[in-house]
Amino acid sequence: MYNIFWLVPIASILALFFAFYFYRQVFKEDEGTDIMKKIANHVRLGAMAYLKQQYKVVLIFFIILTILFSVLAYGFNLQNPWVPFAFLSGGLFSGIAGFLGMKTATMASARTANAARKSLDAGLRVAFRSGGVMGLVVVGLGLLDISIWFVILNYVYPAASDTHNMMIITTTMLTFGMGASAQALFARVGGGIFTKAADVGADLVGKVEAGIPEDDPRNPATIADNVGDNVGDVAGMGADLYESYCGSILATAALGAAAFINTAELQMKAVLAPMLIAAIGILLSIIGIFVVRTKEGASQKSLMKSLEKGINLSSLLIVVAALGLLYLLQIQNWLGIWGALVVGLLVGIVIGKATEYFTSEEYAPTQKIAENAETGPATVIISGLGIGMVSTVVPVIAVGIGIILSYLSATAGDFSNLPVGLYGIGIAAVGMLSTLGITLATDAYGPIADNAGGNAEMSELGPEVRKRTDALDSLGNTTAATGKGFAIGSAALTALALLASYIEELKIGIDRLMQTSGKYLFPNGIEVKSRAELMDLGLNDFMNFFQVHLMNPVVLIGVFIGSMMAFLFCGFTMNAVGRAAAKMVDEVRRQFREIKGILEGDTEPDYAKCVEISTKGAQVEMILPSILAIVVPIIVCLVFGVAGSLGLLVGGLATGFVLAVFMSNSGGAWDNAKKYIESGQMGGKGSDAHKATVIGDTVGDPFKDTSGPSLNILIKLMSMVTIVMSGVTVAVSVF
Amino acid sequence: MYNIFWLVPIASILALFFAFYFYRQVFKEDEGTDIMKKIANHVRLGAMAYLKQQYKVVLIFFIILTILFSVLAYGFNLQNPWVPFAFLSGGLFSGIAGFLGMKTATMASARTANAARKSLDAGLRVAFRSGGVMGLVVVGLGLLDISIWFVILNYVYPAASDTHNMMIITTTMLTFGMGASAQALFARVGGGIFTKAADVGADLVGKVEAGIPEDDPRNPATIADNVGDNVGDVAGMGADLYESYCGSILATAALGAAAFINTAELQMKAVLAPMLIAAIGILLSIIGIFVVRTKEGASQKSLMKSLEKGINLSSLLIVVAALGLLYLLQIQNWLGIWGALVVGLLVGIVIGKATEYFTSEEYAPTQKIAENAETGPATVIISGLGIGMVSTVVPVIAVGIGIILSYLSATAGDFSNLPVGLYGIGIAAVGMLSTLGITLATDAYGPIADNAGGNAEMSELGPEVRKRTDALDSLGNTTAATGKGFAIGSAALTALALLASYIEELKIGIDRLMQTSGKYLFPNGIEVKSRAELMDLGLNDFMNFFQVHLMNPVVLIGVFIGSMMAFLFCGFTMNAVGRAAAKMVDEVRRQFREIKGILEGDTEPDYAKCVEISTKGAQVEMILPSILAIVVPIIVCLVFGVAGSLGLLVGGLATGFVLAVFMSNSGGAWDNAKKYIESGQMGGKGSDAHKATVIGDTVGDPFKDTSGPSLNILIKLMSMVTIVMSGVTVAVSVF
Repeated sequence: MYNIFWLVPIASILALFFAFYFYRQVFKEDEGTDIMKKIANHVRLGAMAYLKQQYKVVLIFFIILTILFSVLAYGFNLQNPWVPFAFLSGGLFSGIAGFLGMKTATMASARTANAARKSLDAGLRVAFRSGGVMGLVVVGLGLLDISIWFVILNYVYPAASDTHNMMIITTTMLTFGMGASAQALFARVGGGIFTKAADVGADLVGKVEAGIPEDDPRNPATIADNVGDNVGDVAGMGADLYESYCGSILATAALGAAAFINTAELQMKAVLAPMLIAAIGILLSIIGIFVVRTKEGASQKSLMKSLEKGINLSSLLIVVAALGLLYLLQIQNWLGIWGALVVGLLVGIVIGKATEYFTSEEYAPTQKIAENAETGPATVIISGLGIGMVSTVVPVIAVGIGIILSYLSATAGDFSNLPVGLYGIGIAAVGMLSTLGITLATDAYGPIADNAGGNAEMSELGPEVRKRTDALDSLGNTTAATGKGFAIGSAALTALALLASYIEELKIGIDRLMQTSGKYLFPNGIEVKSRAELMDLGLNDFMNFFQVHLMNPVVLIGVFIGSMMAFLFCGFTMNAVGRAAAKMVDEVRRQFREIKGILEGDTEPDYAKCVEISTKGAQVEMILPSILAIVVPIIVCLVFGVAGSLGLLVGGLATGFVLAVFMSNSGGAWDNAKKYIESGQMGGKGSDAHKATVIGDTVGDPFKDTSGPSLNILIKLMSMVTIVMSGVTVAVSVF
Repeated sequence: MYNIFWLVPIASILALFFAFYFYRQVFKEDEGTDIMKKIANHVRLGAMAYLKQQYKVVLIFFIILTILFSVLAYGFNLQNPWVPFAFLSGGLFSGIAGFLGMKTATMASARTANAARKSLDAGLRVAFRSGGVMGLVVVGLGLLDISIWFVILNYVYPAASDTHNMMIITTTMLTFGMGASAQALFARVGGGIFTKAADVGADLVGKVEAGIPEDDPRNPATIADNVGDNVGDVAGMGADLYESYCGSILATAALGAAAFINTAELQMKAVLAPMLIAAIGILLSIIGIFVVRTKEGASQKSLMKSLEKGINLSSLLIVVAALGLLYLLQIQNWLGIWGALVVGLLVGIVIGKATEYFTSEEYAPTQKIAENAETGPATVIISGLGIGMVSTVVPVIAVGIGIILSYLSATAGDFSNLPVGLYGIGIAAVGMLSTLGITLATDAYGPIADNAGGNAEMSELGPEVRKRTDALDSLGNTTAATGKGFAIGSAALTALALLASYIEELKIGIDRLMQTSGKYLFPNGIEVKSRAELMDLGLNDFMNFFQVHLMNPVVLIGVFIGSMMAFLFCGFTMNAVGRAAAKMVDEVRRQFREIKGILEGDTEPDYAKCVEISTKGAQVEMILPSILAIVVPIIVCLVFGVAGSLGLLVGGLATGFVLAVFMSNSGGAWDNAKKYIESGQMGGKGSDAHKATVIGDTVGDPFKDTSGPSLNILIKLMSMVTIVMSGVTVAVSVF
């Protein structure tokens, strides 16, 4: 049985091998003219300089948290002794993935532009395979880290001999998600602030005041804007999905260990299933990436079809392959478990389609916003907010139905089988993320194409080339919007799986406490006195003993604080972008004023200064929201205990998910309403209606690229902090 | 013991008497010049015409719901037989209160303007006492309805002889809140859409395009705008708080009946306590209203002090009087119960102060928005949204601490005494609303002063008079903002009390079912077979038997749908305002184009047409969100049962509360950022910065006057629907 596990590390190494292969392939391409090389170099240096600064801040946080976890684990014996190491490895692997992905992306932009001088297909392939590097590095490193820990822990706590050991292994592994989460926090928040400070600043002075087009080399903030695409949309998105990927696999493994604790063999299968599904998904993603190609003169629709062909092929194959795998594993109710996986994939597709409907200029909602531009910016903002709010319906209903269906499917319709039902929800999350290798490639493709367009614009390549890069870029906008929907949906399902696995962590935490005190007193007054008694408690018992019900005022307070946290976190990041952008505006205005000849194109502006301002802005502004996201759950754990913590997580998850969808979709719709007008509607470029939508788009920038996506991290990170703090919570909380 | 009850109807009649007294006093004032009379008449007719239309729609809904409730009660025996009548009486009394309040308000505006020709104090007194009519009518009719039902039901089910009867009385009475809730829904949503369609329409064409000032008689939408202040801010706010007032008293009575079910005398005291506190609050509100007066040439600060003097006096006196009352009642732990009441009052004050800080131009947040106006409308919107989101912290923390403190105070620190703790939370809500007579007078004062200013402007009264009406109006803006904070806070506490009392409704519903089937099977598989067994179940047992815990997927789905509902409802109302305002824009443009001489002031525009457009717009647009708010909870009850319903309520309450605070405060801050610039900052009126804040203010209009306040109704109404559906839920739900 155990031998099949080795498929997991093999797949992860294969992913890394193909990532390297694609990297070499892209690297061999020519970077083009001298000016193209120069611009690409500016962006590359800026991105790396930023990443260095970000990692410095991250390092400080990691040192502090590692010390804290070590004290809790070794000083007070309130935590698993492996936590500090697991935490560090999760952060390290996520950091390496971000570094490699961004290195490839910044290398690829000029090469994509140069390839587009040859043909559209050449451009697409360079850009998409570079995106593939990011996708494969993320899944490869994620699964490698999981494999390494599983081997080590299975050596220390042999699972085959004792099902309790498997509980220890899986709950320990879960905590390495905390490292990935913390890394993702800074990548999303810092990257989001960087990119939008540069973008908003560049737009407000460049487009609105000086009247020069996007990506014009005369705009001092234009390089910073291009750097921002890389740090926000490549590194930030990658770290976000790295976390969802590992989190969903690990949480499902923990849920499987608990649900099938009575038979060692069945338990092992249930734990390995999510890893094996992910491993197969890697192989199928690689196939999908190879399939993507296009013909010269392809319309945007047919370009989109090329990408979709790759994704659809991978998704279809995983459905078939997973059926085979689960059949071979002969896991209990294997057809039902497979059903849960299919549900997860379908939920992802529904969310993607809904996102497209609400944000693409081809459908009524975005066109409505464009029509409202005729009565000015105020009605653009009102209708964009209204449409974003309404757009939350489909994802929520999809996730809701997905929860019920995957639960009922996994339990073969037995609603009372809570442990297996929750395992089914976890499998749905794994299913949704199983083809991450290629979906993330599609996401990362967007900013690469965007940068290629910027490079072509600044290098003043011919109109034919620019037309090609424009086509690639425009496709990237669509994939970016649906990619955001996917990231939010998977974050919500992952957070649900994490939430469900929290009780398993609690069990292990109480078991650890009982090893010294010999007993444990639950908040409802019931006392357990042996491990056997403790392990016999079902999930419903745990909920009852900790009084995690909706009339408990402590739960209600938790829910309130959770909801508030989502808004507060968004408020902080919105304000952060505002402040950082204001500094950028001042700098661009200063350069126009003080450096003679910029606007005439005679003098090169000081690009580096703008990159520096965005870097510093992001560095300063990321700290407060990050502390908030880590400290508030810790306080809630300590004061309001298990009941309050679960309230916090549920409130934060529900509100955070809905708020994230709203912000992403409003932002996307504003962006495309502007593009719709630029395509010649409502008076076209330069009309008053266009100006109104430019304002809408500027408001939408932090919505869709900073605050909205940062919420993905918030809802997962709060779960992770709570999971890691479980031992402390059961030992010392006030209520 | 029972004799002291008669204080309640006496106080309610006294309130109505003083309302009539103030009405006569104001009515005797002169309405001023012919033109003043004419304008006031336009507004009056428009307001009454709108109210007639609104009541027509409401009537249809009430007929449908009454039939539904009758079928459920008499056809299927799934509901209390009194529900249809209680429902109707709640709706009727709330409707009468709205009608009387608006009649007074529309009568008062010209009289206030005319009184301001004499002195500032005369103007303030006319406006404030007219507001007092609204305040006293609401509390008087509310308490009268409660008294009548208590007398009737106590006659049918004598409570003194059987504590179970008291449970039936209080849970029956609770359902009359459903009528008040449904009435409030249409008043808030319809009124909110009316007022902002007119306001946004008037601003977009009048201020922005034609460049004529606010309330200029040349603007065709200006009368509609003034009508809107009355239907939205007087009638809408009144119906909202009528519901909170009755809801909190009735829910607390039901919680008291359940908490002290073991002794008839104690139970009677606990049920009467919230009513008696409200009765005393009425008397003290009347005293407070008499105290409000000012001196000529008073600054805005000293004007504010005059109002605060009245409110503070009433609040201080209620603290002392309630101590005396609870001591005399000798209710169990009377000092602790009193503490809960004080906590409620304090929470109200904290929320009011926080609202003032985040929305007043005297503090940093609003000034920050004004500073951001220098980089254009986009940064005004971003910073306004950011500040609104951050501003949610204080109200959430205040309510959270309020929940814990009132719970622990009422239980004398015994956290395990859930029934008494929840009763304490109810008492906190009652405490917050006890002086509603005067706080609502302050709220209703705002639109009256606003209309008086409009009347003075349109009648071209002298600069001295306009300065006085401006001072009164400016004060009204501050009271409107804090009033909104108060309305949201009290809605949240009322919804919490309703949530807590839901279980009591369930008990009675199960008891009714058992009368025919003799037993009841809970979702967790446990069966009860006698009333004694059922009544012995504690709140924790109920939560456990219905599996209302946070790992139950049905609960999670409920929470998700609840969160989504808050956003969806806001999205619908935002879009409704957008559509209705667009029609208004078209009409105003048409009049400027087709009716010659309007802009020169030679021809009078067609005011009535604009009123008609707002009326029709509101009438059409209120239907969809209203159906949604009623139908979704019904579906959730039927499909997801008790666990899902409670999830829905908690999700809706938490997200709705935070979202409402965010929207209200963003809207208020934008409004005052504009006023701050108009006072001469950042280049003053007419500067680019000013134009940017006008856009912010236009976006803020539906935020603070339509969507935000409508959420108060949503969170209470969903609870009410769930409470009324409890009998059906336990009988037929799927899960």
